[in-house]
Amino acid sequence: MELQLALDLVNIPEAKEVVKEVESYIDIVEIGTPVVINEGLHAVKAIKEAFPNLKVLADLKIMDAGGYEVMKASEAGADIITVLGVSDDSTIRGAVEEARKQGRKIMVDMINVPDIEARALQIDAMGVDYICVHSGYDHQADGKNSFEDLAAIKRVVKQAKTAIAGGIKLDTLPEVIQAQPDLVIVGGGITGAADKKETAQQMRQLVAQGN
Amino acid sequence: MELQLALDLVNIPEAKEVVKEVESYIDIVEIGTPVVINEGLHAVKAIKEAFPNLKVLADLKIMDAGGYEVMKASEAGADIITVLGVSDDSTIRGAVEEARKQGRKIMVDMINVPDIEARALQIDAMGVDYICVHSGYDHQADGKNSFEDLAAIKRVVKQAKTAIAGGIKLDTLPEVIQAQPDLVIVGGGITGAADKKETAQQMRQLVAQGN
Repeated sequence: MELQLALDLVNIPEAKEVVKEVESYIDIVEIGTPVVINEGLHAVKAIKEAFPNLKVLADLKIMDAGGYEVMKASEAGADIITVLGVSDDSTIRGAVEEARKQGRKIMVDMINVPDIEARALQIDAMGVDYICVHSGYDHQADGKNSFEDLAAIKRVVKQAKTAIAGGIKLDTLPEVIQAQPDLVIVGGGITGAADKKETAQQMRQLVAQGN
Repeated sequence: MELQLALDLVNIPEAKEVVKEVESYIDIVEIGTPVVINEGLHAVKAIKEAFPNLKVLADLKIMDAGGYEVMKASEAGADIITVLGVSDDSTIRGAVEEARKQGRKIMVDMINVPDIEARALQIDAMGVDYICVHSGYDHQADGKNSFEDLAAIKRVVKQAKTAIAGGIKLDTLPEVIQAQPDLVIVGGGITGAADKKETAQQMRQLVAQGN
Protein backbone atom coordinates (compact mmCIF):
# COMPACT_ATOMS: atom_id res chain seq x y z
CA MET A 1 0.00 0.00 0.00
CA GLU A 2 1.33 3.42 -0.98
CA LEU A 3 0.67 6.90 0.43
CA GLN A 4 0.14 9.97 -1.77
CA LEU A 5 0.14 13.56 -0.55
CA ALA A 6 -2.24 15.78 -2.55
CA LEU A 7 -1.35 19.47 -2.69
CA ASP A 8 -4.36 21.57 -3.64
CA LEU A 9 -4.29 24.98 -2.02
CA VAL A 10 -0.65 26.05 -2.23
CA ASN A 11 1.60 27.99 -4.57
CA ILE A 12 4.96 26.55 -5.69
CA PRO A 13 7.11 27.78 -2.75
CA GLU A 14 4.48 26.62 -0.23
CA ALA A 15 4.29 23.24 -1.99
CA LYS A 16 8.05 22.79 -1.65
CA GLU A 17 7.91 23.67 2.03
CA VAL A 18 5.19 21.10 2.79
CA VAL A 19 6.87 18.34 0.78
CA LYS A 20 10.23 18.99 2.48
CA GLU A 21 8.57 18.42 5.84
CA VAL A 22 6.93 15.09 4.99
CA GLU A 23 8.97 13.65 2.11
CA SER A 24 10.31 10.70 4.14
CA TYR A 25 6.78 9.45 4.78
CA ILE A 26 5.13 9.63 1.36
CA ASP A 27 5.58 7.72 -1.91
CA ILE A 28 3.91 10.13 -4.32
CA VAL A 29 3.32 13.88 -4.26
CA GLU A 30 0.28 15.08 -6.19
CA ILE A 31 0.15 18.46 -7.85
CA GLY A 32 -3.61 18.91 -7.45
CA THR A 33 -5.94 20.32 -10.07
CA PRO A 34 -6.24 23.74 -8.37
CA VAL A 35 -2.43 24.09 -8.40
CA VAL A 36 -2.28 23.04 -12.07
CA ILE A 37 -4.97 25.61 -12.90
CA ASN A 38 -3.14 28.36 -11.02
CA GLU A 39 0.46 27.59 -11.97
CA GLY A 40 0.31 25.20 -14.93
CA LEU A 41 2.80 22.38 -15.42
CA HIS A 42 5.50 24.72 -14.05
CA ALA A 43 4.43 23.43 -10.63
CA VAL A 44 5.04 19.79 -11.66
CA LYS A 45 8.46 20.68 -13.05
CA ALA A 46 9.46 22.62 -9.93
CA ILE A 47 8.48 19.85 -7.52
CA LYS A 48 10.06 17.06 -9.60
CA GLU A 49 13.31 19.06 -9.79
CA ALA A 50 13.29 19.74 -6.06
CA PHE A 51 12.38 16.14 -5.08
CA PRO A 52 13.71 13.82 -7.83
CA ASN A 53 13.33 10.74 -5.61
CA LEU A 54 9.58 11.20 -5.15
CA LYS A 55 7.06 10.18 -7.76
CA VAL A 56 5.06 13.19 -8.92
CA LEU A 57 1.42 12.90 -9.99
CA ALA A 58 -0.05 15.64 -12.20
CA ASP A 59 -3.78 15.80 -11.49
CA LEU A 60 -4.76 17.13 -14.91
CA LYS A 61 -8.18 15.41 -14.93
CA ILE A 62 -7.81 15.07 -18.70
CA MET A 63 -11.12 15.19 -20.58
CA ASP A 64 -9.82 15.55 -24.15
CA ALA A 65 -6.60 15.37 -26.17
CA GLY A 66 -5.34 12.48 -24.02
CA GLY A 67 -2.13 11.85 -25.93
CA TYR A 68 -1.12 15.50 -26.18
CA GLU A 69 -1.70 16.32 -22.52
CA VAL A 70 0.18 13.22 -21.34
CA MET A 71 3.09 14.21 -23.58
CA LYS A 72 3.21 17.73 -22.08
CA ALA A 73 2.95 16.43 -18.50
CA SER A 74 5.71 13.91 -19.21
CA GLU A 75 7.96 16.69 -20.50
CA ALA A 76 7.37 18.49 -17.21
CA GLY A 77 8.49 15.41 -15.29
CA ALA A 78 5.20 13.86 -14.15
CA ASP A 79 5.42 10.15 -13.31
CA ILE A 80 1.65 9.63 -13.12
CA ILE A 81 -1.05 11.63 -14.95
CA THR A 82 -4.80 11.59 -14.27
CA VAL A 83 -7.55 11.20 -16.87
CA LEU A 84 -11.29 11.41 -16.10
CA GLY A 85 -13.35 8.23 -16.07
CA VAL A 86 -16.21 10.22 -17.66
CA SER A 87 -14.04 11.01 -20.69
CA ASP A 88 -14.33 9.21 -24.01
CA ASP A 89 -12.65 5.81 -24.43
CA SER A 90 -10.51 7.33 -27.21
CA THR A 91 -9.17 9.89 -24.72
CA ILE A 92 -8.23 7.22 -22.17
CA ARG A 93 -6.66 5.02 -24.86
CA GLY A 94 -4.67 7.97 -26.26
CA ALA A 95 -3.41 8.78 -22.77
CA VAL A 96 -2.37 5.17 -22.08
CA GLU A 97 -0.60 4.88 -25.44
CA GLU A 98 1.42 8.06 -24.89
CA ALA A 99 2.20 7.09 -21.28
CA ARG A 100 3.64 3.75 -22.49
CA LYS A 101 5.87 5.62 -24.99
CA GLN A 102 7.08 8.00 -22.29
CA GLY A 103 7.44 5.41 -19.53
CA ARG A 104 4.76 7.13 -17.39
CA LYS A 105 1.62 5.87 -15.68
CA ILE A 106 -2.06 6.74 -16.05
CA MET A 107 -4.52 7.05 -13.19
CA VAL A 108 -8.21 7.28 -14.03
CA ASP A 109 -10.22 9.43 -11.63
CA MET A 110 -13.74 7.97 -11.30
CA ILE A 111 -15.25 11.21 -9.94
CA ASN A 112 -18.93 11.49 -10.91
CA VAL A 113 -18.96 8.30 -13.04
CA PRO A 114 -22.61 7.15 -12.92
CA ASP A 115 -22.13 3.32 -12.96
CA ILE A 116 -18.75 2.96 -11.34
CA GLU A 117 -18.51 -0.85 -11.46
CA ALA A 118 -19.39 -1.15 -15.16
CA ARG A 119 -17.05 1.71 -16.11
CA ALA A 120 -14.16 0.34 -14.01
CA LEU A 121 -14.44 -2.97 -15.87
CA GLN A 122 -14.12 -1.15 -19.23
CA ILE A 123 -11.30 1.11 -18.06
CA ASP A 124 -9.31 -1.74 -16.52
CA ALA A 125 -9.35 -3.45 -19.92
CA MET A 126 -7.80 -0.32 -21.50
CA GLY A 127 -4.55 -0.95 -19.61
CA VAL A 128 -4.55 1.99 -17.20
CA ASP A 129 -2.24 1.75 -14.17
CA TYR A 130 -4.49 3.06 -11.39
CA ILE A 131 -8.24 3.46 -10.97
CA CYS A 132 -9.13 5.97 -8.27
CA VAL A 133 -12.45 6.37 -6.49
CA HIS A 134 -12.81 9.98 -5.50
CA SER A 135 -15.30 11.97 -3.48
CA GLY A 136 -14.66 15.48 -4.75
CA TYR A 137 -14.90 18.65 -2.67
CA ASP A 138 -18.39 19.33 -3.91
CA HIS A 139 -19.43 15.70 -3.24
CA GLN A 140 -17.93 15.72 0.26
CA ALA A 141 -20.02 18.77 1.03
CA ASP A 142 -23.02 16.57 0.20
CA GLY A 143 -21.81 13.98 2.75
CA LYS A 144 -20.82 11.27 0.24
CA ASN A 145 -17.86 8.92 0.73
CA SER A 146 -15.99 6.43 -1.43
CA PHE A 147 -15.95 3.12 0.50
CA GLU A 148 -18.77 1.54 -1.48
CA ASP A 149 -17.15 2.75 -4.69
CA LEU A 150 -13.83 1.16 -3.71
CA ALA A 151 -15.55 -2.15 -2.96
CA ALA A 152 -17.34 -1.92 -6.33
CA ILE A 153 -14.16 -1.43 -8.36
CA LYS A 154 -12.26 -4.07 -6.36
CA ARG A 155 -14.91 -6.58 -7.44
CA VAL A 156 -14.15 -6.08 -11.13
CA VAL A 157 -10.64 -4.68 -11.57
CA LYS A 158 -8.11 -7.35 -12.58
CA GLN A 159 -4.92 -5.53 -13.57
CA ALA A 160 -4.99 -1.89 -12.44
CA LYS A 161 -4.07 -0.79 -8.94
CA THR A 162 -6.88 0.78 -6.92
CA ALA A 163 -6.72 4.15 -5.18
CA ILE A 164 -9.01 6.15 -2.92
CA ALA A 165 -9.17 9.92 -2.40
CA GLY A 166 -11.38 12.48 -0.75
CA GLY A 167 -11.45 13.79 2.80
CA ILE A 168 -9.25 11.09 4.40
CA LYS A 169 -7.95 12.10 7.84
CA LEU A 170 -5.75 10.34 10.42
CA ASP A 171 -8.82 9.15 12.35
CA THR A 172 -10.56 7.74 9.28
CA LEU A 173 -7.42 6.18 7.78
CA PRO A 174 -7.74 2.79 9.61
CA GLU A 175 -11.19 2.29 8.03
CA VAL A 176 -9.75 3.21 4.63
CA ILE A 177 -6.88 0.74 5.06
CA GLN A 178 -9.30 -2.04 5.99
CA ALA A 179 -10.92 -1.56 2.57
CA GLN A 180 -7.47 -2.50 1.09
CA PRO A 181 -6.77 0.00 -1.69
CA ASP A 182 -3.29 -0.13 -3.27
CA LEU A 183 -2.90 3.62 -2.84
CA VAL A 184 -4.31 6.07 -0.28
CA ILE A 185 -4.46 9.75 -1.25
CA VAL A 186 -4.48 12.33 1.55
CA GLY A 187 -4.66 16.09 1.12
CA GLY A 188 -6.04 18.31 3.88
CA GLY A 189 -5.60 15.39 6.31
CA ILE A 190 -1.88 16.20 6.21
CA THR A 191 -1.65 19.78 4.95
CA GLY A 192 -4.29 20.97 7.41
CA ALA A 193 -2.81 19.15 10.42
CA ALA A 194 -1.25 21.14 13.27
CA ASP A 195 1.87 18.96 12.99
CA LYS A 196 2.19 17.86 9.35
CA LYS A 197 5.33 15.80 9.88
CA GLU A 198 3.98 13.89 12.87
CA THR A 199 0.66 13.26 11.07
CA ALA A 200 2.38 12.02 7.91
CA GLN A 201 4.62 9.76 9.99
CA GLN A 202 1.64 8.21 11.79
CA MET A 203 -0.17 7.76 8.46
CA ARG A 204 2.94 6.09 7.02
CA GLN A 205 2.97 3.63 9.93
CA LEU A 206 -0.72 2.78 9.50
CA VAL A 207 -0.27 2.32 5.74
CA ALA A 208 2.80 0.11 6.31
CA GLN A 209 0.81 -2.07 8.73
CA GLY A 210 -1.87 -2.35 6.03
CA ASN A 211 0.58 -4.11 3.69
CA MET B 1 -24.17 35.65 -33.09
CA GLU B 2 -20.71 36.00 -31.57
CA LEU B 3 -17.30 34.69 -32.66
CA GLN B 4 -14.78 33.20 -30.22
CA LEU B 5 -11.14 32.45 -31.01
CA ALA B 6 -9.83 29.40 -29.15
CA LEU B 7 -6.09 29.34 -28.47
CA ASP B 8 -4.89 25.83 -27.72
CA LEU B 9 -1.36 25.25 -28.94
CA VAL B 10 0.48 28.46 -28.10
CA ASN B 11 2.52 29.90 -25.26
CA ILE B 12 1.72 33.36 -23.83
CA PRO B 13 3.82 35.46 -26.27
CA GLU B 14 2.46 33.49 -29.26
CA ALA B 15 -1.09 33.95 -27.95
CA LYS B 16 -0.61 37.72 -27.77
CA GLU B 17 0.72 37.79 -31.32
CA VAL B 18 -2.26 35.87 -32.74
CA VAL B 19 -4.84 37.93 -30.82
CA LYS B 20 -3.21 41.19 -31.95
CA GLU B 21 -3.66 40.11 -35.57
CA VAL B 22 -7.36 39.25 -35.32
CA GLU B 23 -8.69 41.25 -32.37
CA SER B 24 -10.95 43.47 -34.51
CA TYR B 25 -12.86 40.43 -35.78
CA ILE B 26 -13.55 38.42 -32.61
CA ASP B 27 -15.74 38.95 -29.55
CA ILE B 28 -14.14 36.51 -27.15
CA VAL B 29 -10.65 35.04 -26.87
CA GLU B 30 -10.46 31.60 -25.28
CA ILE B 31 -7.47 30.46 -23.28
CA GLY B 32 -7.83 26.78 -24.17
CA THR B 33 -7.37 23.88 -21.76
CA PRO B 34 -3.90 22.95 -23.09
CA VAL B 35 -2.71 26.54 -22.49
CA VAL B 36 -4.21 26.52 -18.98
CA ILE B 37 -2.46 23.22 -18.25
CA ASN B 38 0.87 24.51 -19.54
CA GLU B 39 0.80 28.06 -18.18
CA GLY B 40 -1.95 28.17 -15.57
CA LEU B 41 -4.18 31.20 -15.05
CA HIS B 42 -1.11 33.37 -15.73
CA ALA B 43 -2.11 33.05 -19.40
CA VAL B 44 -5.61 34.41 -18.70
CA LYS B 45 -4.18 37.32 -16.75
CA ALA B 46 -1.63 38.18 -19.46
CA ILE B 47 -4.20 38.17 -22.27
CA LYS B 48 -6.81 40.15 -20.31
CA GLU B 49 -4.18 42.76 -19.43
CA ALA B 50 -3.00 42.99 -23.03
CA PHE B 51 -6.53 43.11 -24.51
CA PRO B 52 -8.85 44.65 -21.91
CA ASN B 53 -11.60 45.29 -24.48
CA LEU B 54 -11.95 41.62 -25.42
CA LYS B 55 -13.87 39.14 -23.32
CA VAL B 56 -11.58 36.34 -22.13
CA LEU B 57 -12.85 32.79 -21.62
CA ALA B 58 -10.86 30.46 -19.35
CA ASP B 59 -11.44 26.90 -20.57
CA LEU B 60 -10.88 25.26 -17.19
CA LYS B 61 -13.30 22.37 -17.85
CA ILE B 62 -14.09 22.39 -14.13
CA MET B 63 -15.00 18.96 -12.73
CA ASP B 64 -14.86 19.72 -8.99
CA ALA B 65 -14.58 22.65 -6.58
CA GLY B 66 -16.76 24.79 -8.84
CA GLY B 67 -16.92 27.83 -6.58
CA TYR B 68 -13.21 27.90 -5.78
CA GLU B 69 -12.04 27.54 -9.37
CA VAL B 70 -14.43 30.25 -10.61
CA MET B 71 -13.13 32.57 -7.87
CA LYS B 72 -9.50 31.98 -8.95
CA ALA B 73 -10.30 32.45 -12.66
CA SER B 74 -12.21 35.66 -11.83
CA GLU B 75 -9.20 36.98 -9.93
CA ALA B 76 -7.13 36.35 -13.06
CA GLY B 77 -9.58 38.40 -15.13
CA ALA B 78 -11.65 35.72 -16.90
CA ASP B 79 -15.06 36.94 -18.10
CA ILE B 80 -16.38 33.46 -18.88
CA ILE B 81 -15.33 30.17 -17.23
CA THR B 82 -16.12 26.63 -18.44
CA VAL B 83 -17.50 23.78 -16.32
CA LEU B 84 -18.03 20.23 -17.58
CA GLY B 85 -21.57 19.01 -18.28
CA VAL B 86 -20.53 15.59 -16.90
CA SER B 87 -19.69 17.16 -13.52
CA ASP B 88 -21.97 16.95 -10.49
CA ASP B 89 -24.92 19.35 -10.21
CA SER B 90 -23.36 20.74 -7.01
CA THR B 91 -20.24 21.68 -8.98
CA ILE B 92 -22.23 23.51 -11.65
CA ARG B 93 -24.39 25.26 -9.04
CA GLY B 94 -21.29 26.31 -7.05
CA ALA B 95 -19.74 27.72 -10.20
CA VAL B 96 -22.88 29.67 -11.14
CA GLU B 97 -23.24 31.07 -7.61
CA GLU B 98 -19.63 32.30 -7.52
CA ALA B 99 -19.87 33.70 -11.06
CA ARG B 100 -22.93 35.76 -10.05
CA LYS B 101 -20.98 37.17 -7.08
CA GLN B 102 -18.03 38.06 -9.26
CA GLY B 103 -20.03 39.34 -12.23
CA ARG B 104 -18.69 36.59 -14.52
CA LYS B 105 -20.39 34.06 -16.79
CA ILE B 106 -20.43 30.26 -16.84
CA MET B 107 -20.27 28.13 -19.97
CA VAL B 108 -21.01 24.43 -19.66
CA ASP B 109 -19.06 22.23 -22.06
CA MET B 110 -21.21 19.23 -23.06
CA ILE B 111 -18.24 17.15 -24.24
CA ASN B 112 -18.97 13.42 -23.77
CA VAL B 113 -22.34 13.93 -22.04
CA PRO B 114 -24.26 10.71 -22.81
CA ASP B 115 -27.85 12.08 -23.14
CA ILE B 116 -27.19 15.62 -24.28
CA GLU B 117 -30.83 16.76 -24.55
CA ALA B 118 -31.84 15.59 -21.07
CA ARG B 119 -28.69 17.04 -19.47
CA ALA B 120 -29.06 20.38 -21.29
CA LEU B 121 -32.57 20.71 -19.88
CA GLN B 122 -31.22 20.21 -16.32
CA ILE B 123 -28.24 22.50 -16.82
CA ASP B 124 -30.32 25.28 -18.37
CA ALA B 125 -32.45 25.28 -15.23
CA MET B 126 -29.31 25.85 -13.09
CA GLY B 127 -28.91 29.33 -14.57
CA VAL B 128 -25.73 28.89 -16.61
CA ASP B 129 -25.01 31.50 -19.28
CA TYR B 130 -23.87 29.33 -22.18
CA ILE B 131 -24.27 25.67 -23.09
CA CYS B 132 -21.66 24.50 -25.60
CA VAL B 133 -21.78 21.40 -27.78
CA HIS B 134 -18.25 20.27 -28.39
CA SER B 135 -16.61 17.62 -30.53
CA GLY B 136 -13.27 17.26 -28.80
CA TYR B 137 -9.97 16.48 -30.51
CA ASP B 138 -10.28 12.81 -29.71
CA HIS B 139 -13.92 12.78 -30.91
CA GLN B 140 -13.05 14.60 -34.14
CA ALA B 141 -10.46 11.94 -34.87
CA ASP B 142 -13.38 9.47 -34.70
CA GLY B 143 -15.26 11.55 -37.34
CA LYS B 144 -17.99 12.89 -35.03
CA ASN B 145 -19.51 16.38 -35.36
CA SER B 146 -21.82 18.53 -33.25
CA PHE B 147 -24.71 19.59 -35.51
CA GLU B 148 -27.15 17.04 -34.14
CA ASP B 149 -26.08 17.95 -30.62
CA LEU B 150 -26.71 21.64 -31.28
CA ALA B 151 -30.18 20.87 -32.64
CA ALA B 152 -30.85 18.72 -29.56
CA ILE B 153 -29.94 21.44 -27.05
CA LYS B 154 -31.77 24.13 -29.04
CA ARG B 155 -34.95 22.08 -28.65
CA VAL B 156 -34.82 22.27 -24.85
CA VAL B 157 -32.72 25.27 -23.76
CA LYS B 158 -34.88 28.25 -22.71
CA GLN B 159 -32.54 30.78 -21.09
CA ALA B 160 -28.88 29.95 -21.79
CA LYS B 161 -27.12 30.95 -24.98
CA THR B 162 -25.96 28.08 -27.19
CA ALA B 163 -22.43 27.61 -28.49
CA ILE B 164 -20.70 25.17 -30.82
CA ALA B 165 -17.03 24.15 -30.94
CA GLY B 166 -14.85 21.58 -32.59
CA GLY B 167 -13.09 21.59 -35.95
CA ILE B 168 -14.96 24.56 -37.51
CA LYS B 169 -13.20 25.96 -40.61
CA LEU B 170 -14.03 28.79 -43.03
CA ASP B 171 -15.60 26.35 -45.49
CA THR B 172 -17.79 24.64 -42.87
CA LEU B 173 -18.79 27.89 -41.12
CA PRO B 174 -21.87 28.59 -43.34
CA GLU B 175 -23.37 25.21 -42.34
CA VAL B 176 -22.64 26.00 -38.68
CA ILE B 177 -24.30 29.43 -38.97
CA GLN B 178 -27.40 27.86 -40.54
CA ALA B 179 -27.77 25.82 -37.36
CA GLN B 180 -28.11 29.20 -35.51
CA PRO B 181 -25.93 28.95 -32.40
CA ASP B 182 -25.52 32.16 -30.36
CA LEU B 183 -21.74 31.69 -30.31
CA VAL B 184 -19.34 30.02 -32.75
CA ILE B 185 -15.96 28.87 -31.41
CA VAL B 186 -13.08 28.54 -33.89
CA GLY B 187 -9.55 27.40 -33.07
CA GLY B 188 -7.34 25.85 -35.75
CA GLY B 189 -9.72 27.25 -38.39
CA ILE B 190 -8.10 30.62 -37.68
CA THR B 191 -4.77 29.82 -35.99
CA GLY B 192 -3.87 27.26 -38.67
CA ALA B 193 -4.87 29.48 -41.64
CA ALA B 194 -2.17 30.81 -43.97
CA ASP B 195 -3.63 34.32 -43.49
CA LYS B 196 -5.14 34.49 -40.00
CA LYS B 197 -6.33 38.08 -40.29
CA GLU B 198 -8.06 37.58 -43.66
CA THR B 199 -9.67 34.34 -42.44
CA ALA B 200 -10.92 35.93 -39.21
CA GLN B 201 -12.31 38.87 -41.18
CA GLN B 202 -14.22 36.58 -43.54
CA MET B 203 -15.53 34.57 -40.59
CA ARG B 204 -16.64 37.80 -38.91
CA GLN B 205 -18.60 38.77 -42.04
CA LEU B 206 -20.32 35.37 -42.23
CA VAL B 207 -21.20 35.48 -38.52
CA ALA B 208 -22.54 39.04 -38.88
CA GLN B 209 -24.76 37.93 -41.79
CA GLY B 210 -25.99 35.10 -39.56
CA ASN B 211 -27.50 37.60 -37.11
